[in-house]
This record gives sequence, C-alpha cells and structure tokens, in this order.
Amino acid sequence: MNWLLLARLLGLLGMLVGGAMSLSLPWAFPFAGQVEHFEEKGFWGLVGAIVFALVIGGTLYVVGRKNQGTVLRKEALAIVGLGWILSGLLGSLPFLFAGVQRAPGVPMNVADALFESISGFTTTGASVLTELEDPVLVPRCVMFWRCFTHWLGGMGIIVLFVAVLSHLGAGGKALLRREVPGPIAESVRPRVQETAMVMWAIYVGLSGLEALLLVAQGLSLYDALCHTFGTMATGGFSTYNASVGEFGGGTVEATIVFFMLLAGTNFSLYYAILRRQEPGRGILHRLAPVYRDPEFRAYLGIIVGASLLLTLSLVRTGIYENAGVAVRHAIFMSISIMTTTGFGTEDFNQWSEFAKGLLLLLMFVGGCAGSTGGGIKVVRFLIFIKAIRVEVERAFRPNVVRTIRLGGVPLDNTIRHDVIVYFSLVLFVFITSWMVLAAIEPDAQWQATNGDVNAAKLLDCASAVAATLNNIGPGLGVLGPAENYSDFSAPGKLLLTLLMLLGRLELFAILVLFMPSFWRTQ
Amino acid sequence: MNWLLLARLLGLLGMLVGGAMSLSLPWAFPFAGQVEHFEEKGFWGLVGAIVFALVIGGTLYVVGRKNQGTVLRKEALAIVGLGWILSGLLGSLPFLFAGVQRAPGVPMNVADALFESISGFTTTGASVLTELEDPVLVPRCVMFWRCFTHWLGGMGIIVLFVAVLSHLGAGGKALLRREVPGPIAESVRPRVQETAMVMWAIYVGLSGLEALLLVAQGLSLYDALCHTFGTMATGGFSTYNASVGEFGGGTVEATIVFFMLLAGTNFSLYYAILRRQEPGRGILHRLAPVYRDPEFRAYLGIIVGASLLLTLSLVRTGIYENAGVAVRHAIFMSISIMTTTGFGTEDFNQWSEFAKGLLLLLMFVGGCAGSTGGGIKVVRFLIFIKAIRVEVERAFRPNVVRTIRLGGVPLDNTIRHDVIVYFSLVLFVFITSWMVLAAIEPDAQWQATNGDVNAAKLLDCASAVAATLNNIGPGLGVLGPAENYSDFSAPGKLLLTLLMLLGRLELFAILVLFMPSFWRTQ
Ligand SMILES: [K+]
Ligand SMILES: [K+]
Repeated sequence: MNWLLLARLLGLLGMLVGGAMSLSLPWAFPFAGQVEHFEEKGFWGLVGAIVFALVIGGTLYVVGRKNQGTVLRKEALAIVGLGWILSGLLGSLPFLFAGVQRAPGVPMNVADALFESISGFTTTGASVLTELEDPVLVPRCVMFWRCFTHWLGGMGIIVLFVAVLSHLGAGGKALLRREVPGPIAESVRPRVQETAMVMWAIYVGLSGLEALLLVAQGLSLYDALCHTFGTMATGGFSTYNASVGEFGGGTVEATIVFFMLLAGTNFSLYYAILRRQEPGRGILHRLAPVYRDPEFRAYLGIIVGASLLLTLSLVRTGIYENAGVAVRHAIFMSISIMTTTGFGTEDFNQWSEFAKGLLLLLMFVGGCAGSTGGGIKVVRFLIFIKAIRVEVERAFRPNVVRTIRLGGVPLDNTIRHDVIVYFSLVLFVFITSWMVLAAIEPDAQWQATNGDVNAAKLLDCASAVAATLNNIGPGLGVLGPAENYSDFSAPGKLLLTLLMLLGRLELFAILVLFMPSFWRTQ
Repeated sequence: MNWLLLARLLGLLGMLVGGAMSLSLPWAFPFAGQVEHFEEKGFWGLVGAIVFALVIGGTLYVVGRKNQGTVLRKEALAIVGLGWILSGLLGSLPFLFAGVQRAPGVPMNVADALFESISGFTTTGASVLTELEDPVLVPRCVMFWRCFTHWLGGMGIIVLFVAVLSHLGAGGKALLRREVPGPIAESVRPRVQETAMVMWAIYVGLSGLEALLLVAQGLSLYDALCHTFGTMATGGFSTYNASVGEFGGGTVEATIVFFMLLAGTNFSLYYAILRRQEPGRGILHRLAPVYRDPEFRAYLGIIVGASLLLTLSLVRTGIYENAGVAVRHAIFMSISIMTTTGFGTEDFNQWSEFAKGLLLLLMFVGGCAGSTGGGIKVVRFLIFIKAIRVEVERAFRPNVVRTIRLGGVPLDNTIRHDVIVYFSLVLFVFITSWMVLAAIEPDAQWQATNGDVNAAKLLDCASAVAATLNNIGPGLGVLGPAENYSDFSAPGKLLLTLLMLLGRLELFAILVLFMPSFWRTQ
C-alpha cells in the first residue's frame, strides 16, 4: 500500500469537503435563509467544522505531497472506502459543533452525528432527527449542509461508477462497457476522465433544471435546492417532517416523481441521447438507446407492476377516499422506494401487510447501474434470473455451455459468476446484520409501545437493515422506534452506518478494508 | 426422456409404497395398537389406499415393463422428483379414505392430506392436525403411517444422497467423494450400490437401537417406533400434542437428543468408524474420522454456540425457574432445530426476540451432508465462508488464483461456484415464496387474534416458508395460525408443500421439472 499517495489524495478530499461546507454558510443569514435572525450557533459550528476539515485535509496533503506514484487497484479501493469514511467523519462535525438536537433537549452524540452524516453522503436519507422544522433544534444552515451531503455523495457515486466501481467485482466493468455506448468502450484512461466529466455535467444539469422547476412552482430557493439534492442523489432527506407530503400533491409532487425516475436511470443513457444528433431523424430515433435498453425497460416494468399491485391492495383495503388518491400514493411510493430515494407522501405503515412486504422487496431491487440509486440494481436481477436458468439446466445438461445475452449482446461468463456472488453476499450481509441488530437492541423498546406482543421487533430490525444496506432511508417500522432511527442504541446506529457504506460502495470497497492481506505491502 | 423407463420405475415405487402401507395395518387392532377396539375406518381406509397404490403402481409397471434402457441423468432426475411427488400423492390417501379430521368435525381435504403426506416423506414434520391424541379424529393405524412416512423418506434421502443427489449441482458429487472415505472414492457403479447398502444398514441399525432404548425406558412399542421414525429421519412428527415434552425430560429426552445428533451427522462417518478395525488401537483412533472431519466439528461447534447463546438469553429473561431448566431447553431446541428435526419440549414462542431470531437462522444451517437432516447443510456454509473470502480478495488481487481447502483437502473450483449458486438460489426461493405466501393469506386471520397490530403476519409467513423449505416443521409462529399449519388457505398449503419438496431434494430435482427443455426429447 502506498501510504503517502493515500495521504495526499485523502487530504485533497478533506479540503474539498471543507470547501463544500462553506456553501452552507450563507443560509445562516436572514437574507438568504429561512430564518429571521442570524443563526449564531449554526454559523460558528459550520465555521469550526470547515477549519477542522481544512486543517486535517491540509496536514494529510502536506504529509503526502512529495509522492507522485500512480493509483493502482489497491490504492483506488482504499481511497474509495476511506474517502467515504473520512467525508462522513468530517461531515458529522457541523452537527456536533452546532449542538444540533435530535429531539427537544437531546443533543446529538457522536454516533448520531456520524449516522446522519454518512446517511447523507451515502444518499441513504435515514435520520435520527425527530423534529426537522424547528430552527432552534436544527439551524437552517446545518440543515442545508445535511441535504447538501446527499448531492455530494450522489455526484461521487456517478463519477465513481465510471472511474472505479466499474473495475471491481460483481461484473461492474463489463456492465459499464456494455452500457456506456460512447468513449468508455475503448477504455483508455483519458476517455474515462472524459466520460466522468460528461456524467458530472448531466448530473449538474438535471439538478439545475429540477431546482428551477421547483422555484417556478413557488418553492423557496432553499426548499427547492434541498429537495433537488434529495431527489437527484436519490437521497431522501427533506426539510419537512411530512417529507414531500408537505407540498400536498399536485405539480410539485409530480415534478419530484419525474426527477426521481430520472435519477434512478443509468446516466450513460442520457449521454447516448445527447450524442444522437443526426438531422432529419425523429424523437423516437433520439430516444432509441433508452427504450432499447433492457435494464431501463425492466426498471420501468417493475415500477408499473409494483404500482398496480399496490393500487389493488390499497383499493381493496379501502384506506383512501377514492381510487385516484390510492393510485397517486401507490405510484409515488413505488418510485420512491424502487429508486431508493425514500421520500414519503403517506405513512405506509397503515398499508396492508402485503403492500409492506412488497415495498420491502422493492428495496432490494434498487435503481439502474450507473444511476445514483442504491440497492442491488435492476441489471443484476436481469442477469441473475438468466444465470439461474442456466444453472438449473446444467443439472440435466452438464456439458452444454450456455452464454447469457442481455439485449442481444452476449455477456462474459465471469459476469454470471460475479452477479451470483454479489447476490449471495448481499443476502448474507443482510441476514447476519439483522441478527446482530436484533441481539443488540433491547426487546423492552418494542414491548413498551406494543403491550406484550413484541413480534414486530424482528421485522422492524429487518426493515432497518434493508433500508440502510440498500440506501433507502425510511424503514417499514410498524412501531414507533423504527419510524425514525432516533431510538436505536449507539452500537445499533454504528452497525447501520456501516451497512450504508457497504451498500453504497457495492460491498467490496468496504469489505477489503477488513482483510489484513489488503493492508500488507506486497 | 425415456417415458417407458420412467413408468416402470415409478410403478415399482408405487407398489413399494403400497407394500409399506400394509405395515401400518396391525396397529388398527387392539392387541398391537394403542386402541381398545378395532379401528374400522382407519383399517379400511388403509386397505383402500394400499389397493389403490398397488393398482396404480402395477399399471405403470406393466406399461413400462418391456423397457430395458439404462437410467441416464435426465431419467434419474425425473425419477427423484416425480418419485417423491408420487409417494406423497399415494401417501395422502389413507388420510382421505379414513376420514381423518384435522380438528373436531373438520375432515382433511385434498390439500391437507397432501400437505401432511409430503411433510412426512420429506421429513419436514409440519402438520395440519390440531389434535393428535384422539383416536376418533386420527385412527392410531393412520397415525402410525404418518410417522412411518418420515422413516421411509429418511431412508430414501440417505440412499439417494449416495446414488443420485451427489451427482447433481451444488458440489454434491465432489462433497461426497471427499467425505465418503470408502468405496465411493473409486466411483464405479457396483461400489455406489454397495455404499448405498451400507448406509441403509446403518440407518436401520441406529433406528433399531433407538427403538430398543426407548422401549427399555418404558415407552410402548408404538410410541417408541413412532418417535424413532421422527428422530432418525429428522422428521419431527410426534404422537402427542406436547411432542417430546410429553415425556417430561429425563433419560427419554436425553436419548432422543442423542439420536437427533446422530441423525444430523454424515452417515458415511459411521461407515468410516466401522471400517477402522485395527487391533491394539484405542477408541480415539477409531473415532478419528469423526473428530477430524471439519463439517462435524463445525456442526458440533454451532450447536454448542447456539445452546450457550440461547441459555444466556433464557436466563436473562428469566422465563424458567432455574438455569438448569434453561440449559436443558436451550440444548434440546438447538439440536432439534439445527438437525431440522423439529421436535419440541417447550413453546419457544414465549422466548425473547433474539432467541427466536437465532432459531430462525439455525433453520437455514441444517444438518451435515449425507445425513437425514435438511437445510443448506453445514459443509456448504464452511465452503461459502471460504469462497466469500476468496471473492473479496479477488477485488484487489484479480489475478491471484486461490484454491479452497477443507480439512486440508483442496476443493475443485467448480464446487465454490456451485455452493454460491446454491446459497443464492435458496435465498431467492425463500424471499419469493415469502412474498407470495403473504399475498395469498388474508390479513384478517392475524388481525382477529391480535387486535389491530398485524405485524406478525410477515414474520409468521417468513417462518412458515423457512420451516418448510428447510424441512424443519414447526414455524416460529408468534400467533395462533402459524403454531400449526391448519389455518393456512389451501393454495398456501400447496405452496408450502412445494417448498418441502424443493428443500428436501436440494432444489434441482424439482426445479428441472418446470423447465420445458427438460421434457423435450433430445
Ligand atoms: K435514499
Ligand atoms: K423436520
């Protein structure tokens, strides 16, 4: 391991985080923010965190500045894993320094702040805050930082997918090669950088468009930005206790639904559309890369199917006054969960057990590869289903070699193996963490709110693990404690924080950090 | 597909099942059974089923008798899958013909009878009967048949493992080659038959020994045999509502615990012990194959660990009067669930959430390969853990080729792949079936017994799926409905029946039946 190189790059990242923090400072002032008076605690808390980040980052940079080595596979992995952890640590400082209270009179402790910060950077959107709208509990400028971590994390993932994640296991590289129709195909280094830049520009462009549309519909710039961050990063942090339900449906909700859908789509498809600029051809020709993409079709198909099933379930149980409202909520929640955004309009805990189970399953599907969405990703499901067919056929035709095709393109056989490994690994991590969480959290918490029937604990723990591992955010949580992560114990919060990192970085970049052989100099 | 060959062999099996049924007839008479008067309905119900089985079997045999083809891979798979289904169908007839009542005044329907019969043959031990002890509801001779299906199914699995299952995917063949230290190593056909015979003899011998010990401790021959069938096949059907709890602890319980442990062990280890007959060497030398076997060590280790954790949890929650009782119940339940037997001494639904979650996890581990136990099997877990390490290492050392070793013996790389496929497939089947079951079963059933908190439905459905897919039997079932499968709907029961078959035959022999290409003549 090239430690000096690591120090230099992590130092650079630390300074970047400090710089990004300073964009939250204006919101402490009445003219820019939502506040009447200057937010003293919030402002100085942010300033302290900025200084801290710059000092830490600067020191690391100075230590490693002489190093000019190139980033090899090991270093790349270490920078991804440690970089996300460092960002999370630094990002938690504003919450601590500004004395943010997770409930009236309960200041956030270290585990709380780390949970909230890493939940932001990993675009999970799970929160320990129980009251979002009171500037005394959470200063508006720190709240802005909280939402901004989503956007930074989302950008990181989009760029990272091109630069690093696609070169790891789980078939990433091959997936990318297949899906990015442009420069990456030749796979030379400058081209990777070019692709990353284009992706970054698309991300910024779509974000700007959404913010503009939201402002045009009467939202304050503050609310428009914060909800754009939550949407485009598929993060899900809102500035309101009622989340997107605050806006009461209508065009604002429709705008957010549409951009959630865009955020869960493979960004390279947008690039492909942009490149098809042949004069005299219609819009259908332009959109061909999208509707011909098997992953996008499956993504839309699952959303439509889930919306239908949810609508049926909602109409049958008759929770809503009419079918129109049921359809609206069904579509919103399907897209919010499937894209792993986690915005809410309705408390789905009152929905039927089947509806809740379906949402729990959707959590694992997730968005498309190359999007900001989390979860296992649609394309892996497509490959998994095909791979399973091949494996079953192998039981009676052991000597026939089959090649899986996706959208007509043959896939390398190692992808099949990698995808199956990824599936089993996700489920293994899910089950183990579920059990550990159930062991850590005392039963008493569930019994208190639910009489002697404490059955919901196991389910709540399962949903908390699923919602963090897949970077969704809100869990099913039938009972009080899990509607919000506030009441989980500190060790429980740290475990869930680790799961957010594991899910966001597609397991490997975090798992390797626990292997001694990874750190040994070869 | 060689249909005539299939008909001939299935016909033979049908006649065997009919013949086996006749062994239940004596128990309808007062001198042999537990009854005061001749059980008319039970007797004639059995006779009808025997005639039916002989006619069906005979017809199939006559149809295919001219065929002298050899059993190829496809035919072997079809015979395993269809054979278990045929046995289940024929085995359900006594329940129907004898008018067995699953509750007072509620006769079993076709789904009930099929569920009970396949639960028996697959050694699952899940039951739809709510009252076992009343001969008017369940004639003693039919009850004997119910327990006897376990023993037949267990024998089938032991022989099958050697003859067929070990040649399928999921690394079976290689596992066997590694583990059966004797004749199979050379892997020529007569040797396979020899091994199967030896395994069969060990199964019969251990069963006889247990029955003798139980009779010596004062059990009636009827009870001794029925509980021996339940133990050695890791089945779990009892003749008492309180299951093994009926015997109130003591040496009977200890005997059953000991034989459950033996039934969950790889039977080839016993063969290896029998073969080490060198004079002048001590018992340790004799037992070397056992304590050197990595799977057996892990099997014992998991049981000891689980017993300790359960004891801790039970002592902390203080359900039992003293630690001794807690230890006893903890050991019994650990072994009963881990070996997938499913006998009970205590209602574990009153245990802590953590304890229940731990039992749910143990369900998936299961016994050793080559035992009568179900579940994923210990050895697959050992390989899975090692395989995952290799996969993670591949993320930073993509070009290093590693070979997994188990007990010092290198494993073929395809085993690694097969085991990971098996894991992902089991979890995939588990999750899909869970969702379908939750959709099929109406919420109302859970609401009725539990007020408005219907959260336990998802958990109960999960435990029902886990308990059938892993051939355990009793589910976690916090609420009434799942303590027993009686209240599930007919489609739900059929789904669970399919899961028992899938689990028992290690997925592939059932999954191929659903593939059109399997049936096409090549
Ligand atoms: K999210
Ligand atoms: K069983």
